[in-house]
Amino acid sequence: MSGVVRADRAIAAVAQAAAEQGFAVAITVVDTAGVLVAFRRMDGCMVGPVDVSQKKARTAALFGMDSTDFGQVAQPGGAIYSIEHTNGGLISFGGGVTLRDADTLVGAIGVAGATTDADETLARAGAQAY
Amino acid sequence: MSGVVRADRAIAAVAQAAAEQGFAVAITVVDTAGVLVAFRRMDGCMVGPVDVSQKKARTAALFGMDSTDFGQVAQPGGAIYSIEHTNGGLISFGGGVTLRDADTLVGAIGVAGATTDADETLARAGAQAY
Amino acid sequence: MSGVVRADRAIAAVAQAAAEQGFAVAITVVDTAGVLVAFRRMDGCMVGPVDVSQKKARTAALFGMDSTDFGQVAQPGGAIYSIEHTNGGLISFGGGVTLRDADTLVGAIGVAGATTDADETLARAGAQAY
Amino acid sequence: MSGVVRADRAIAAVAQAAAEQGFAVAITVVDTAGVLVAFRRMDGCMVGPVDVSQKKARTAALFGMDSTDFGQVAQPGGAIYSIEHTNGGLISFGGGVTLRDADTLVGAIGVAGATTDADETLARAGAQAY
Repeated sequence: MSGVVRADRAIAAVAQAAAEQGFAVAITVVDTAGVLVAFRRMDGCMVGPVDVSQKKARTAALFGMDSTDFGQVAQPGGAIYSIEHTNGGLISFGGGVTLRDADTLVGAIGVAGATTDADETLARAGAQAY
Repeated sequence: MSGVVRADRAIAAVAQAAAEQGFAVAITVVDTAGVLVAFRRMDGCMVGPVDVSQKKARTAALFGMDSTDFGQVAQPGGAIYSIEHTNGGLISFGGGVTLRDADTLVGAIGVAGATTDADETLARAGAQAY
Repeated sequence: MSGVVRADRAIAAVAQAAAEQGFAVAITVVDTAGVLVAFRRMDGCMVGPVDVSQKKARTAALFGMDSTDFGQVAQPGGAIYSIEHTNGGLISFGGGVTLRDADTLVGAIGVAGATTDADETLARAGAQAY
Repeated sequence: MSGVVRADRAIAAVAQAAAEQGFAVAITVVDTAGVLVAFRRMDGCMVGPVDVSQKKARTAALFGMDSTDFGQVAQPGGAIYSIEHTNGGLISFGGGVTLRDADTLVGAIGVAGATTDADETLARAGAQAY
């Protein structure tokens, strides 16, 4: 199936779940190079989460690792502290989730604008729907 | 009607028209601050047009002026030459079109990846569908 | 054959031809997203061409178009003047050449540090050897 | 011996050792100004390590100090915390190693994409082969 059709399906799933929970979020899908494939900012979502959702998605895509796992090690005191300053700025908390075809990394989805826990759950729902 | 629903409708209209013409384009909708509302990169669209479509939409939104009109004056020899280097880089050719509610500017749509003429026509079709 | 092996072979071909002509150049190979695959700066090459060779390669890769053709239209007075300010800065003269597998774009090679004509010829030799 | 020939030899040594260990890494050699001399991204290496390997090499070159030593002091609580935000972003963990001629600093090598320990060991092997 077309990549952008799958991306839109993932975004629609996130948007619906977010609306049901009363959140207005920004949702980004990128390819393995971190380049934008599709994006949606729900009505009522502030401006800040637009960039955050993109950086979450980029973090997961560029390292093949969910941003919440990345955050375990890219923290002051962590094994790879300072890596978060590379690649234009990366994110060390939940909401960026890899997208895979079977085991092959094909990109990532990033969600921002709700709580960190909800962003993470929503991103996982999006990855599921992809 | 919801802004993002209208943005998605505009993007869908552009994507369908582009597909019929055999083009794979990048399509950006931004608000009046030039911040992303919705985005889609069609399968087969190269990476370069991703940024170009965003800068076209930003150009139209930030100055309330279609990018093709902007290009009449923002050129070497033009009345406001050099303004195209502001705001992170603006675009002096067609494909960025303002979105209005009656007469009120509400954002802009940018299309890149086809020919300049086709980008412009597609963006106008998107603005119509918005 | 491995992508990076082919990239190294292209770079070696450019470096040998440049040395024979008495030039010290910077040579960049990127993928279709414009991300670095391989790079070599010959002894005696100044610092400036390092970035120029990368932007030449990115220009060709991101738009699927040799930088010399790009330069026909991305000039003051050209149909897409100002596009050279997108994507972090693009190059409007020779020395960036697309790399293809049959008809499929797989990346690009950029050469800088000689004359523009020699850069262009060297980049074409590199694309041939790829 | 030519600087770039030595750089290529170092990169080849790292690539061979990494392949034997089952890693696909990005390898950067820079001069004392932190400017690229040679680079190779092995097949299968993700995009994120490309920038990380460059920042590791820059860190070591710009301060004449391996990135793992730099990380002892350039951490929250460390003596020069915040210096890692200078020079476009520096790296506070292993994988960036200085290159010297006798005692004279001539540049640095950076490796990223394996584990931090393996990156560090590979970079030292590269410095040895230089």
